[in-house]
Amino acid sequence: MSSSQQARAVVLEAFGAPVRSRELPVAEPGPGAIVATVELAGVCGTDVHLQAGRLPIPLPVVLGHEGVGRIAALGEGVTEDSLGTPLAAGDLVAWGSSISCGDCFYCRDAQEPTLCERRRIYGINRRADEWPHLGGAWAEAIYLHPGSMVVRLGAGTPPEAVIALGCAGPTAVHGLLGVAPVGVGESVVVQGVGPVGLATAMYAQLAGAANVVLIGGPASRLERARALGVGDAYLELDAQSPAERLDAVRELTGGRGGDLVVEATGVPAAVAEGLELCRPGGRYLVLGQYTDHGPTPLNPHLVTRKQLRVLGSWAFSQADYATYLRTVPQLAARFDLPRLLERFTLGDAQAALDAARAGEVGKAVLVPDAG
Amino acid sequence: MSSSQQARAVVLEAFGAPVRSRELPVAEPGPGAIVATVELAGVCGTDVHLQAGRLPIPLPVVLGHEGVGRIAALGEGVTEDSLGTPLAAGDLVAWGSSISCGDCFYCRDAQEPTLCERRRIYGINRRADEWPHLGGAWAEAIYLHPGSMVVRLGAGTPPEAVIALGCAGPTAVHGLLGVAPVGVGESVVVQGVGPVGLATAMYAQLAGAANVVLIGGPASRLERARALGVGDAYLELDAQSPAERLDAVRELTGGRGGDLVVEATGVPAAVAEGLELCRPGGRYLVLGQYTDHGPTPLNPHLVTRKQLRVLGSWAFSQADYATYLRTVPQLAARFDLPRLLERFTLGDAQAALDAARAGEVGKAVLVPDAG
Amino acid sequence: MSSSQQARAVVLEAFGAPVRSRELPVAEPGPGAIVATVELAGVCGTDVHLQAGRLPIPLPVVLGHEGVGRIAALGEGVTEDSLGTPLAAGDLVAWGSSISCGDCFYCRDAQEPTLCERRRIYGINRRADEWPHLGGAWAEAIYLHPGSMVVRLGAGTPPEAVIALGCAGPTAVHGLLGVAPVGVGESVVVQGVGPVGLATAMYAQLAGAANVVLIGGPASRLERARALGVGDAYLELDAQSPAERLDAVRELTGGRGGDLVVEATGVPAAVAEGLELCRPGGRYLVLGQYTDHGPTPLNPHLVTRKQLRVLGSWAFSQADYATYLRTVPQLAARFDLPRLLERFTLGDAQAALDAARAGEVGKAVLVPDAG
Amino acid sequence: MSSSQQARAVVLEAFGAPVRSRELPVAEPGPGAIVATVELAGVCGTDVHLQAGRLPIPLPVVLGHEGVGRIAALGEGVTEDSLGTPLAAGDLVAWGSSISCGDCFYCRDAQEPTLCERRRIYGINRRADEWPHLGGAWAEAIYLHPGSMVVRLGAGTPPEAVIALGCAGPTAVHGLLGVAPVGVGESVVVQGVGPVGLATAMYAQLAGAANVVLIGGPASRLERARALGVGDAYLELDAQSPAERLDAVRELTGGRGGDLVVEATGVPAAVAEGLELCRPGGRYLVLGQYTDHGPTPLNPHLVTRKQLRVLGSWAFSQADYATYLRTVPQLAARFDLPRLLERFTLGDAQAALDAARAGEVGKAVLVPDAG
Repeated sequence: MSSSQQARAVVLEAFGAPVRSRELPVAEPGPGAIVATVELAGVCGTDVHLQAGRLPIPLPVVLGHEGVGRIAALGEGVTEDSLGTPLAAGDLVAWGSSISCGDCFYCRDAQEPTLCERRRIYGINRRADEWPHLGGAWAEAIYLHPGSMVVRLGAGTPPEAVIALGCAGPTAVHGLLGVAPVGVGESVVVQGVGPVGLATAMYAQLAGAANVVLIGGPASRLERARALGVGDAYLELDAQSPAERLDAVRELTGGRGGDLVVEATGVPAAVAEGLELCRPGGRYLVLGQYTDHGPTPLNPHLVTRKQLRVLGSWAFSQADYATYLRTVPQLAARFDLPRLLERFTLGDAQAALDAARAGEVGKAVLVPDAG
Repeated sequence: MSSSQQARAVVLEAFGAPVRSRELPVAEPGPGAIVATVELAGVCGTDVHLQAGRLPIPLPVVLGHEGVGRIAALGEGVTEDSLGTPLAAGDLVAWGSSISCGDCFYCRDAQEPTLCERRRIYGINRRADEWPHLGGAWAEAIYLHPGSMVVRLGAGTPPEAVIALGCAGPTAVHGLLGVAPVGVGESVVVQGVGPVGLATAMYAQLAGAANVVLIGGPASRLERARALGVGDAYLELDAQSPAERLDAVRELTGGRGGDLVVEATGVPAAVAEGLELCRPGGRYLVLGQYTDHGPTPLNPHLVTRKQLRVLGSWAFSQADYATYLRTVPQLAARFDLPRLLERFTLGDAQAALDAARAGEVGKAVLVPDAG
Repeated sequence: MSSSQQARAVVLEAFGAPVRSRELPVAEPGPGAIVATVELAGVCGTDVHLQAGRLPIPLPVVLGHEGVGRIAALGEGVTEDSLGTPLAAGDLVAWGSSISCGDCFYCRDAQEPTLCERRRIYGINRRADEWPHLGGAWAEAIYLHPGSMVVRLGAGTPPEAVIALGCAGPTAVHGLLGVAPVGVGESVVVQGVGPVGLATAMYAQLAGAANVVLIGGPASRLERARALGVGDAYLELDAQSPAERLDAVRELTGGRGGDLVVEATGVPAAVAEGLELCRPGGRYLVLGQYTDHGPTPLNPHLVTRKQLRVLGSWAFSQADYATYLRTVPQLAARFDLPRLLERFTLGDAQAALDAARAGEVGKAVLVPDAG
Repeated sequence: MSSSQQARAVVLEAFGAPVRSRELPVAEPGPGAIVATVELAGVCGTDVHLQAGRLPIPLPVVLGHEGVGRIAALGEGVTEDSLGTPLAAGDLVAWGSSISCGDCFYCRDAQEPTLCERRRIYGINRRADEWPHLGGAWAEAIYLHPGSMVVRLGAGTPPEAVIALGCAGPTAVHGLLGVAPVGVGESVVVQGVGPVGLATAMYAQLAGAANVVLIGGPASRLERARALGVGDAYLELDAQSPAERLDAVRELTGGRGGDLVVEATGVPAAVAEGLELCRPGGRYLVLGQYTDHGPTPLNPHLVTRKQLRVLGSWAFSQADYATYLRTVPQLAARFDLPRLLERFTLGDAQAALDAARAGEVGKAVLVPDAG
């Protein structure tokens, strides 16, 4: 931090305008809260959407829903992390981005906290002009409220590995381990090779899939996946027609289609193709339809005739985030995660956003103390 | 039967033409087979489609995939029914309509026999001009091949109750008990009040649903459901706009939508509405999209945002049919099933088909020995 | 209440000694809290164990973990019940007995709040000599802390019906609907006809079990179940040997044993018998082994050979309690629940405990304003 | 084969006596059947039990329920293997050991074919003195009846890898992938390091377990596991008391115990310890209690208090065997399976049995054409 009282932060003040660097006061942590200095903060496609004004959020806001840092100060009563490990100033920690209300039908009765309508999310719906101001990870410090999922990072969980997948990691955990678990020996087809597609494919491999087929583009992204050891076969979107891809997937899956097909594109038209790519009796995980583009032509007969299970997955819970952190060492042992990183200073946050928008980088991250 | 050698049967000889009454030879049952006289045979919407030539079947065929009858002759080695109960000539039995191959990926590996591509179905894909000719229930006798699910009917399982739901009964079992089980206390919305919708609603009540909302038309069909004690609330299709129905369903379900919504209409457009009627975190059972009408506009964002499970269900297995027969006494104790029946003679089969097409009757059944 | 400042309460001050009636101060509800006057409070077998000192609890304690009452005062910020229904003074409410910490591995990560090691339970581990004193339902008033599951009772949920099953109701919900769901048409065998056995059998019937066999004693308890319409067959414990009971159960279940067998006795030896009563491929719900009697001879070969699922169920969560209240109208429509009640005044609390210990009554309840 | 008409076979003629080498006639395969020459046949602990007369089987019998071989002759109508791959003489195949009846309650209704009471098993309940004589794999040739699961082995599925785990492989598939699936990131404790324990641990690793703890002995067996890369931690049975092992397991699992504990010992007393080793909310897979040693002291309170799921698993189905063969390439890529093999000639079958009894070898296999 620039001083003990102030921290620099990247603030979105107006939709469509460049982000601004501001000095904001660092609050003392209240009971149950934590103040952490940020070591690495991820830049995510959602940040691009936020800046463009595509999501209804309050402004101004300190961006950054992905972060890893060190404990600066512990509020009264905080002696352990959320998994029961003792915590002290200086400890390296990661935190989940959201806090559900714990009280509504979805939190308490249905036990589906990702559907909570009162979720508070760091870097998204916490105003920068209200106490405690530092509500996002694109800053020298962040104020972590009581109820946050904060986990001390052990030796096997390097911060670079945690941040390399960003929120795509726990999103894949929620979808692929929670909503539509993969069985050992199964064939998995992943539509999309952005962060969510990549993370999903990694978890499919970790879960024992016999065969992971990646569909996407451009070729450079498929190449990046291949270089990381992610996926067993690659179909370039622009090189084939949908009918050719269907043939190719069938050939790779014993003639039947994928046991599990994962939609990780955000493009509505991908869903029509995905239903075709599933084998009879298969599952289709609709993981990427985050924005509402309205209706698209889909054939419901396929759902009945092939007896499909079409499964939606929204966001991730604190439990998913805990599972994510628990499995980062396994991912890191198998895939060279830090290789994905491209570092930016806080001052270059707008350049990082631009790079993320262009899809040029594996994973843009901000390093607050780098300048 | 008219003689010990011949049986009258209703044969579909050409698509679009009236069915014809023919005399066909009664074969001696081979090892493992059974010949039964038919007491009651159901007329189903599928029969209407078959006559219209909408499904690719071989002709000529003795129609009738729903039947109850009496053992006339047992082939070598047949001493018990499919559940282990001793069998003798004269016993009252019901039989499942299909025999899966037992050998393919879907039968043996995936244990999804309804997806078997070599299923043989009485009254649908068994030729009348080949031995043993009597391959459907619209006849004085039927030849039941080895591998059929044949179950002796006990005192609590009257033939009228078995036939009253026809194949809609086991179809509802497969979908509602197998694919998308209902929990005690749940809210269920059923789109469609034809036989499948009615059977589904009955099973939802049997399974402890707190609240079953029926959507359909015309009013007379809703009235028939209400008179039978099926459903707790009724929304007439033509009386309300989709937006009004959505409001009405929310009001009936604590403001959120159905825990489970069941599509039992066969109309593609119903699917778009059904996705709206599900509560966040809910399930949507796509049970009625049996014919391929091609794509229809659907919003996949709802699947992700509401984290829906959209579940297809195709046909029913022999296990489902066994469950159906096991639960007919429970249905019969709760609902006046025989009240649904409208009887026709074999000679009036075309009139029965016409009545089924017009949707005028609860359940048209043929009574072979009635004339 | 005897005055606006004081409420009479039944306090357990020493193990093995009679409970005492005391006047305790009524606190103002803090933010998020509620003070309710108690209309009906249940007496449970656990209360008998608590008095005997069989469980390690702090003393003194106001007993009573089952209650129904009326809102006396709402703390700041309380405008709705836990399901989102508006709340006002005078409203009739029921409340769940426990509050889990929301923070530990079991609450947040494993989503098994019944396993939380820091659960606070009304009438069990809240001291009467510390603010806010009124921590149990055996009193004119109770202080309901923030985080309690409080639900307004609608017209279909009469207080007598809610209290008639006491905590056995939600315990059965957790076990029978959550841990080991019953399918329509299944055979269920329940060992034990105390409150938990009775509640379990009711839910099995609600869930569509074809056949519920009750095993227990003495004969008067089986007779009480039969009079209520609970169960389809009854085996008296003392009238038959275990081998005879096994024969009887097989005869009632098609020769194979129960699809689901529920242990609701608390007697370790019942488990050995229960494993025998399950059919191959069946489930055994171990719902009643609440106290540790140490090892008992059991044959693990049965678990492997019959491929059983032996499922433990501990306590119930707030979600289970919500499901319970949601389904009380369904129970009440089918079973004459209030018939189980036997009313006592607060002053007769010791007599109520004695009656519960003797198993003489259906359900002993205290009526605080009855004297 | 020694001639086109006769094949040498190892026959168990009397319990307790050495096995004998006999010449038996090779039948022509009937419709749907296959005759295969045997390349590798496994020796299993069950064979030791069979020789000792501990299981009720008919004699004489050609032993050998594990085998890999080549197609010698195809019966009428056999053109594909059980997964739809074309078959021709000379093809390398593996076959499942059992054929369920397809007809009984367990096969057709409950879809639990491992519980079929009429299962026929090669090398176990097929008499050698009746046609077609060659009913086990310890022979130069075997007669594979219609209904067998026969799978052509591709390039990635070397026979040595298939036979290295013997029936322990598909047994682990049934238990660990079917009955008690492992989640990515979970802690798994395996009691027993015989073939079933080893195979289970391998599948746990394939399924993404974060941590696999092996408990067993003697030290040499643990060392063999470690050398193969199986397991992450090793607890030697004789080096620690049960209380010390419990402490050690807790230390390895974040203080709570295994998410999943697998019993693969066959020793009843292991079950008591296994219940302690599970974390609250965990699962216990009882995979090894194949023989009936009668009751052993177990504490059912643990099942309720810790809300355990205790899951039995019996044998494996043809679907499990197909999954096994599908996943052998994945196992083989990770573990040096052929390293486990110790080869014997048919003439040395008794020596192979003795070695298996002594537990001295990784996996004893017979090589029929080796002498």
